[in-house]
Amino acid sequence: MGIENQNTQVMEIPSADLLDHWQGHRRLTRRLIEAFPEDKIFTYSIGGMRPFSDMVIEFLGMAAPGVRGMATGVWQPNVWTKPATKEALLQRWDEATEEINRYWPQITAARFLETDTAFGRWPGSIYSFFCYFVDNEIHHRGQGFVYLRSLGIEPPFFYERT
Amino acid sequence: MGIENQNTQVMEIPSADLLDHWQGHRRLTRRLIEAFPEDKIFTYSIGGMRPFSDMVIEFLGMAAPGVRGMATGVWQPNVWTKPATKEALLQRWDEATEEINRYWPQITAARFLETDTAFGRWPGSIYSFFCYFVDNEIHHRGQGFVYLRSLGIEPPFFYERT
Repeated sequence: MGIENQNTQVMEIPSADLLDHWQGHRRLTRRLIEAFPEDKIFTYSIGGMRPFSDMVIEFLGMAAPGVRGMATGVWQPNVWTKPATKEALLQRWDEATEEINRYWPQITAARFLETDTAFGRWPGSIYSFFCYFVDNEIHHRGQGFVYLRSLGIEPPFFYERT
Repeated sequence: MGIENQNTQVMEIPSADLLDHWQGHRRLTRRLIEAFPEDKIFTYSIGGMRPFSDMVIEFLGMAAPGVRGMATGVWQPNVWTKPATKEALLQRWDEATEEINRYWPQITAARFLETDTAFGRWPGSIYSFFCYFVDNEIHHRGQGFVYLRSLGIEPPFFYERT
C-alpha cells in the first residue's frame, strides 16, 4: 500500500474526548482570568494590544454562540451587556460551560463534516469551526500569559487542564 | 435518541485535513520567525520568559521527532546542534516540514487511537500527542506575537495559514 493510498484515511475521535479537550482548555483559561488582578484584567496591555478582558469576551463570543451554531445551524451572537467585573466575566464563563455541555452532544458525526457559514461570515466545515474556536483561545490566552509574567504573576501550568 | 446515547458518537476527520491543519499552523509560525529581527529572536524577552528562538527550538523538538514517534513508536529527540542564526532556524524548520509530510501518511487510523508514551515520558493516545504538539505551538507562538508587538513590529494575521 503506497503513501498516497494511506493518506485517504479518516481518523476517528470520540465526540466526548473532543468536548473534554475544549472544556479542558476552557478550564485553564478560567484559571488565567482568576489569576489576573481585578483592575489589570480590564486595563493592562503590552504593545498597544487589547486588555485580557477583551480577549475573554471574544472567547465568550465563540463559546455558547459557537456551539449553538455548530449544533443547530443558527448563529446568533451573545445578547448580554459586556461583563465589566472579573466576577461577571467568570459568571458568563460558567454559563457558557453549561451551554457547551448541553449543545455538544447534539452535534452528530454527520453534522461535524457538514459545511456551514459561521455567524453568516465564515464558511467552513463544522470541525474547522471547532478547531478555530479552540485555537483562537489558546493563541490569545498565550498572550495573557505574557501579560501576567510581565506583571510579576506566575501563570498556571499550560498542561494542567483538570 | 437521548443525549447520552448521542455522545457515544465518534467524529471522523480526514487524515489529510489534520496534516494540513498542522502544517498551516507551522506556515504561520515560519512567518513569525521571519518577522523577527535577527538579534531580537535570540535575545528579546518579556517578564523573564524565554526568547522566541528557544520556543521555536521546542517546537522543532516536537515536530520531526514527534511525527516519527507517532508513526513508528520510536521516540528520539533531534540530534543536531541548536540553530544559532535565523537562517539555521528556518532551515531546520523546512527539514521538519518535509519529515512531517513524509511520516504523517504512515499513521493509520488504528494507530491514531493507540496509546503510547511520547519520548518515554508522557503517556496518552497518539491523537492526544497530535493535539498537544499543535496546541503548544499555538500557545507559545501567541507569546511571540506579543514580543513582536512590543518591538513595534506588526505580526502576520493569525487566520492566514497558506
